[in-house]
Amino acid sequence: MNFSNSVVGFIGLGKMGLPMAKNLQSAGQSLIIYDVSQQACTSLAGHKGTEVATSISEVANKADLIFTMLPTGEDVAQVCQAADGLFSHARPGTLIVDCSTAHPQLIRSLSDAAAHISLRMLDAPVSGGVVGAVAGTLTFMVGADQVTTDSLRPVLSAMGKKIVSCGAPGHGQVAKICNNLLLGISMIGTCEALSLGARHGMDPAMLTEIIASSTGNNWCVSTNNPWPGVLPDAPSSHGYAHGGSIQTLAKDMGLAVQTASEQHMPLLLGAVAKQLYEMAMNQGLSDLDFSSVIKLYAESK
Amino acid sequence: MNFSNSVVGFIGLGKMGLPMAKNLQSAGQSLIIYDVSQQACTSLAGHKGTEVATSISEVANKADLIFTMLPTGEDVAQVCQAADGLFSHARPGTLIVDCSTAHPQLIRSLSDAAAHISLRMLDAPVSGGVVGAVAGTLTFMVGADQVTTDSLRPVLSAMGKKIVSCGAPGHGQVAKICNNLLLGISMIGTCEALSLGARHGMDPAMLTEIIASSTGNNWCVSTNNPWPGVLPDAPSSHGYAHGGSIQTLAKDMGLAVQTASEQHMPLLLGAVAKQLYEMAMNQGLSDLDFSSVIKLYAESK
Amino acid sequence: MNFSNSVVGFIGLGKMGLPMAKNLQSAGQSLIIYDVSQQACTSLAGHKGTEVATSISEVANKADLIFTMLPTGEDVAQVCQAADGLFSHARPGTLIVDCSTAHPQLIRSLSDAAAHISLRMLDAPVSGGVVGAVAGTLTFMVGADQVTTDSLRPVLSAMGKKIVSCGAPGHGQVAKICNNLLLGISMIGTCEALSLGARHGMDPAMLTEIIASSTGNNWCVSTNNPWPGVLPDAPSSHGYAHGGSIQTLAKDMGLAVQTASEQHMPLLLGAVAKQLYEMAMNQGLSDLDFSSVIKLYAESK
Amino acid sequence: MNFSNSVVGFIGLGKMGLPMAKNLQSAGQSLIIYDVSQQACTSLAGHKGTEVATSISEVANKADLIFTMLPTGEDVAQVCQAADGLFSHARPGTLIVDCSTAHPQLIRSLSDAAAHISLRMLDAPVSGGVVGAVAGTLTFMVGADQVTTDSLRPVLSAMGKKIVSCGAPGHGQVAKICNNLLLGISMIGTCEALSLGARHGMDPAMLTEIIASSTGNNWCVSTNNPWPGVLPDAPSSHGYAHGGSIQTLAKDMGLAVQTASEQHMPLLLGAVAKQLYEMAMNQGLSDLDFSSVIKLYAESK
Repeated sequence: MNFSNSVVGFIGLGKMGLPMAKNLQSAGQSLIIYDVSQQACTSLAGHKGTEVATSISEVANKADLIFTMLPTGEDVAQVCQAADGLFSHARPGTLIVDCSTAHPQLIRSLSDAAAHISLRMLDAPVSGGVVGAVAGTLTFMVGADQVTTDSLRPVLSAMGKKIVSCGAPGHGQVAKICNNLLLGISMIGTCEALSLGARHGMDPAMLTEIIASSTGNNWCVSTNNPWPGVLPDAPSSHGYAHGGSIQTLAKDMGLAVQTASEQHMPLLLGAVAKQLYEMAMNQGLSDLDFSSVIKLYAESK
Repeated sequence: MNFSNSVVGFIGLGKMGLPMAKNLQSAGQSLIIYDVSQQACTSLAGHKGTEVATSISEVANKADLIFTMLPTGEDVAQVCQAADGLFSHARPGTLIVDCSTAHPQLIRSLSDAAAHISLRMLDAPVSGGVVGAVAGTLTFMVGADQVTTDSLRPVLSAMGKKIVSCGAPGHGQVAKICNNLLLGISMIGTCEALSLGARHGMDPAMLTEIIASSTGNNWCVSTNNPWPGVLPDAPSSHGYAHGGSIQTLAKDMGLAVQTASEQHMPLLLGAVAKQLYEMAMNQGLSDLDFSSVIKLYAESK
Repeated sequence: MNFSNSVVGFIGLGKMGLPMAKNLQSAGQSLIIYDVSQQACTSLAGHKGTEVATSISEVANKADLIFTMLPTGEDVAQVCQAADGLFSHARPGTLIVDCSTAHPQLIRSLSDAAAHISLRMLDAPVSGGVVGAVAGTLTFMVGADQVTTDSLRPVLSAMGKKIVSCGAPGHGQVAKICNNLLLGISMIGTCEALSLGARHGMDPAMLTEIIASSTGNNWCVSTNNPWPGVLPDAPSSHGYAHGGSIQTLAKDMGLAVQTASEQHMPLLLGAVAKQLYEMAMNQGLSDLDFSSVIKLYAESK
Repeated sequence: MNFSNSVVGFIGLGKMGLPMAKNLQSAGQSLIIYDVSQQACTSLAGHKGTEVATSISEVANKADLIFTMLPTGEDVAQVCQAADGLFSHARPGTLIVDCSTAHPQLIRSLSDAAAHISLRMLDAPVSGGVVGAVAGTLTFMVGADQVTTDSLRPVLSAMGKKIVSCGAPGHGQVAKICNNLLLGISMIGTCEALSLGARHGMDPAMLTEIIASSTGNNWCVSTNNPWPGVLPDAPSSHGYAHGGSIQTLAKDMGLAVQTASEQHMPLLLGAVAKQLYEMAMNQGLSDLDFSSVIKLYAESK
């Protein structure tokens, strides 16, 4: 199946959803869009091939493939299961793809419920933030096998650069959570290593170069280096602006710690790293790039 | 200066030093060797161009370049500063290169003391373990500027594959400590991420592939993956044998935490990671590859 | 006001609620009881002065003071705010006292909502567990000022030994969370101190005696000592049975960490302690007394 | 044996040793004193019954009981084992009591060595700080059985209020380390609990009162409360002055973590608590009372 010629529904036109839908529109995709705030639909309206719906059920009635991009998992459940929601009104065979960040178990439950009524639902959470949504360079972690993922590729390509199959419903969320857990830990590890080197009088740029070609290398060392000036293009060299915020990362790591606890799995390093981001937020750094957590290690005057 | 035609001294022929000296010998380097145990010299003796010394001062008298590879920093200080040691007996201009793992501050002190008596001393700690020492594939982190490092390259190349300039005396140790600190943290982060994914029912091999091409990637994910079977050549796929041991890594991380404390620098993630390796040692895993720390996260039956 | 002569409602007759209501009954209090499972009411029925209600609204119609003892905060919200719930049916002036463990903010919201409709609602969470509920020796942490707390004292005394005023609605929960956070940390601290002493060859009983009369003393040292045999009456001397379980404590500490995160307050020691209880649960210790967390520190054979 | 009529030696007249020796002098004890700085002896000289020695061997020749109060364990080893030290010059049967803070293993070694040459050596580290040393209210943790401890009691009573037998040589140090480990953890736990309560709008004084009579109680809650104004006499109510400093506590906790690592015993909560004190030192709080660690939890403006 190829959705390029289908009508695609898009529910949720916030900071992320709006530029994503705009990219679909620009790619020539026929759209039917909806948001609780009709205001949010304005900038996409009036474009040939784009219809503005006044209810979720209207989207359900007209689309073959429906994206949801909503603030919380509760919103996703509501949009699917409310009396006027997708599950009650979508046509048999409709595919619902949720791009929000949500609990993997919720996705599995919704996916199972959808299957019972001849619908399909899966998750495709994104990374790349608002910048990636605008530029159409998001990564999609698709909770589906390779075949299904490939069938979505032509549509997703309008919004993202990398589309990865994660196996089964819910596993898109799992992959995102696990990646961000490791990312959050690696960043703090990188901050500790560079700060320690600097305290010993070593130039952080030279230390970066050495680690980058050694066993300690990771994406935070080589690409999002937290030490100002080491990488001219990294947020750290521009006041820690325009990256993945501490707040966002702490939220994702919180989801990791929570889902681990639900299974009585200890997640010690993750829990400590999470607390260090909390400490950074307590010091007013919430909205800066998450590499700004290095400020916790600065020598006090 | 080029040391290839010089007589090179080698003091300390233990598990690491012996194969290192053997590689120098095989490369045709003229050698004078010494170990507190004369027994240790046996397997290198009788080779044309290799002399066995019976005292440290004898080595000092005859060599232009002297390597030391000793168990502890105290041993290094002793070999340099004892009455019959290198500092009292080496000829002006001699270069002493310590390959042991030692406190950066000790190296700086010894280097300063050496400079006052017209000697040169610097550090060049290695990574790669016994396996790398035997194969001649060690990495040398040289506590010297680029010019000095280059002058050592022909000799070091007989023992190692990668020779990195770290700037100044002591900074070889700093680079090694910082790299291993980050490595130790990254490994546990990787274990937590893969274990969490597995608890959520996701295939660790698929999760590895996804993270390896995403922002969470690091050397532990892509090369020394802790989940058995994901990478056929990794220690985890062979009973965690033949890698850098938990014990060795915990020792290096202990040095990181200690030197940070000396400067009242907090090193929270490092300290917790260190404790988790202690916990693994307490469970009898000391001699396994450090990726075996993943056993802490196994579900109990 | 004195509720001794009033009809007291009791909603929620589970493991905790049933023995609590029974103690009220034994003290001669007039009761009207309700549980979603009518079965749960059986053992209290047929007693002079005790009426079994078949709906929440029936309790609301007849009682001046209503206790709720429910599994989760969501249940409390439901019992209060559902169409047939307490808020819609209680008579003006009725006092609702929730003894469940819930989020402080939920209690504050419900309390505010109640005040708007001329009802009063406050929290009085308990400590002491099922054993204390049966024996009538619970501690009540009352989210009210001293006067209101005193007015409840005659009734609460039938169920508990200690009744503490915590100031305002929600603060009963806050006090319980904060106490249990500190308790959970203190227990692990005590385990680490005694285990370290034992590794150094010191008798844990002698060490206990010394710490108990020094600055390190706390309730875990002096009363719930985790080392088997030190205190004959402690759970540790009886296979860690019959105390506050690891599971319960971990749940309370989770609430502490969560409510701290909501305010971007770091809670590092609490988060680590929480993870150590998770680790103990992962090793199958969930139902043992929380002092059994000391098993994490046992030397492996 | 009773040392009241003996000549008592005292080596080490620093911030702690000087007031301790002064208290012995005031109690009428015959003394022979020594310090590397003869200056340090000045204020005790010229008192009937007090002799100033010019060497350690002179003390060794004349005293039956010798106290040492020195900065580090290395100093203690030096004073005992140097060529002109106590072991070479003390008369058979002399009892050496070291009041410094040192590694338990060092004390055991020195004690064993002393026994081989018909001397006795044991540890009696103190708590109470300079204030306690001046006031004569120190606690002595004596590394000896009850009988030996009792024999020292008349002399120690001049310097301290509490004299505790800890069993065997080295165990005085062990008891001190374990107590201070737990103390350091309890203080941070207390800070987290009170700060969390305050964030929830609860009065820290009321919360203190509740916890103090509950299972979370400890010495930091009831006696050295970290919240300013809760206890008028606590350091927190006087700018955190005049207590046990963060620096001192961090040093003791460092000894705990180090000796645990030597035995591959994990000490997770201790290691994290230690790092939090490091973080406080990094923020310039080293010399304040250790309850000032609560500043880490203050809300940023």
